[in-house]
Amino acid sequence: MSRAGGPLLFSERARRLPATTPFVGPEAIERQSGLPCRARLGANESVFGPSPRAVAAMAEAAAASWAYGDPEQFALKAALARHLGIEASHITVGEGIDGLFGLLVHLATAPGDAVLTSHGAYPTFNYHVAAYGAVLHTVPYRGDRQDLDALLDRARALRPKLLYFANPDNPTGSWHEEADIRRLIDGVPEETILVLDEAYGDLAPPTSLPPVDLLRPNLLRFRTFSKAYGMAGVRVGYAIGQPEAVRQFDKVRNHFGVSRIAQAGAVAALADQDYLRDTVRRITAARDRLGVIARSAGLVPLPSATNFVAIDCGRDGAFAKAVLEGVLRRGVFIRKPAVAPLDRLIRVTVGRDEDLALFAEALEGALGEAGGA
Amino acid sequence: MSRAGGPLLFSERARRLPATTPFVGPEAIERQSGLPCRARLGANESVFGPSPRAVAAMAEAAAASWAYGDPEQFALKAALARHLGIEASHITVGEGIDGLFGLLVHLATAPGDAVLTSHGAYPTFNYHVAAYGAVLHTVPYRGDRQDLDALLDRARALRPKLLYFANPDNPTGSWHEEADIRRLIDGVPEETILVLDEAYGDLAPPTSLPPVDLLRPNLLRFRTFSKAYGMAGVRVGYAIGQPEAVRQFDKVRNHFGVSRIAQAGAVAALADQDYLRDTVRRITAARDRLGVIARSAGLVPLPSATNFVAIDCGRDGAFAKAVLEGVLRRGVFIRKPAVAPLDRLIRVTVGRDEDLALFAEALEGALGEAGGA
Repeated sequence: MSRAGGPLLFSERARRLPATTPFVGPEAIERQSGLPCRARLGANESVFGPSPRAVAAMAEAAAASWAYGDPEQFALKAALARHLGIEASHITVGEGIDGLFGLLVHLATAPGDAVLTSHGAYPTFNYHVAAYGAVLHTVPYRGDRQDLDALLDRARALRPKLLYFANPDNPTGSWHEEADIRRLIDGVPEETILVLDEAYGDLAPPTSLPPVDLLRPNLLRFRTFSKAYGMAGVRVGYAIGQPEAVRQFDKVRNHFGVSRIAQAGAVAALADQDYLRDTVRRITAARDRLGVIARSAGLVPLPSATNFVAIDCGRDGAFAKAVLEGVLRRGVFIRKPAVAPLDRLIRVTVGRDEDLALFAEALEGALGEAGGA
Repeated sequence: MSRAGGPLLFSERARRLPATTPFVGPEAIERQSGLPCRARLGANESVFGPSPRAVAAMAEAAAASWAYGDPEQFALKAALARHLGIEASHITVGEGIDGLFGLLVHLATAPGDAVLTSHGAYPTFNYHVAAYGAVLHTVPYRGDRQDLDALLDRARALRPKLLYFANPDNPTGSWHEEADIRRLIDGVPEETILVLDEAYGDLAPPTSLPPVDLLRPNLLRFRTFSKAYGMAGVRVGYAIGQPEAVRQFDKVRNHFGVSRIAQAGAVAALADQDYLRDTVRRITAARDRLGVIARSAGLVPLPSATNFVAIDCGRDGAFAKAVLEGVLRRGVFIRKPAVAPLDRLIRVTVGRDEDLALFAEALEGALGEAGGA
């Protein structure tokens, strides 16, 4: 059982997985560069923060955290069901959408099974696909949007186990209208689970989301408290689907994984819809301001239905990378897509006026250095 | 691709997994029975709670939780490394030991691979083994302890991918001395990863734990903030091993899964060792008191190096089940092992004086009804 280098510990698949992962946080950039992060605009967090009521509920729950959280998340599911107008049996809760994606790939694929997404779409979904040995197929973006019709055509030929689609989309910020999403839902092969990522759904135009009770046996819709609710660091996401699909997660999830604090915070956040509406207004205003900053610098902001703006730097990926690095060197944390043709974009999360002012200044400096604008 | 009942969604293995899971929390018991839980002594939590410094740190982190936690958990790993006298590269952090067990089974097994444990040992480990299609083999307990020599003999014949051993043990509370654990570590086949669960290690006699820097390529030691640190609801566990083994977890983990609040709380808890020592003293005193209660009721408490006591009800599993149910009906949440010969035990977590008084009263009533003592 041995060979050079010692015995074969871990599975063959695990040994073949890459040791590096694409998750470089601002803390790591700070540690590597030695520069403090002056504005954190790279992870699509909401600097406007959680509702004060959620913060208070979490502080209270911290003191009670000698006890495990409810593994059935009864109160949170009941609150979500009331808020959304569906049944608790339509909901499963996990440690963020990322955690739920890992469970879903575990549940839905065997090694070698096909999974379909767009080339340049959410990398963490792809990361879990690789971890389970499923095979990722991709369709290119078209006009900086996911190409819905090409995805459907490919799905009909490929019959993948999972088809990933984000509405609104990350990293472009684009969105599709409800009629298109219905066409997607109705057109997906019946043996393919449509993974509809609605992480930014709270920020989307109402015309873009099908009613929440539009469900199918092969449809799971993913939502989160990380974006509009401003609770990225708390780790609560959920999936909505028909009970038979939702129940599958109970077979493999970390039952106590959603912390007592997270459950209490999410319940309190849901109860404060005034705060959510106010945050959405602030995000929308900051998004407009980001567009103005981009245009003032001679760049083109893409339309966005999210809490970030993808800015077209107007040349190739190498130029956008130079701009990105110039902005980072000035202590402003932003990101950019890695693959063409999206790699000519930089992606900037909205922030407070002071954050955006720092970005505007950094962008000007970076463009000057990179020889642009 | 279809058959009666619709298309085949989810994998064949997932469809075969049981829909019910063994995680019934006190909240669910309350909801099902309609009785309020007067004393929560069934989940081996620490009612003495987290350090006040940890609570303060978590409350502060709650307000900052618009931002994702550091995916590399740099500060927490550095604090753990300093505290333990090892390197940060020896540590991986996860959403409790349960979460790390899921990742480990994912990393270390392929469907059909053998995994070895004791019959009646930690069910959540077994749950993850089943979820990944590995095959669980077991060795019986002997004298209410894991049978170390029988496990070693079986491992040499079976060459399993994983061998689970808890020190101290749950559900019996028993422990092994350091020399035995060294024998286990040295005797495990080199292609078997020894999963040494030290969740209760902070409560164990110093003579029972090998030095923390005793590491092997095929050894992973699991520890947690859920037990002595009183932070079960927060979800922080970690594994200690050689860097090559520890690094594997980065290939499959939910990188942002350990919340910002959890990381801040764990760092603060580590810094308050006075509080930990005081908690361990309170747990030890309460454990002695639980022993007195058991003996006063005519039952036999097993020796324990944990924050719970397994009490031998002296007859068969049916009798112990009647005792358990009588105690539960009186609003005192405790648990019992499900499989023989451990099923004649009830398992009671230590508590404050008032919790233990409620248990003593409930036990007396339950024994009276069950016709015992």
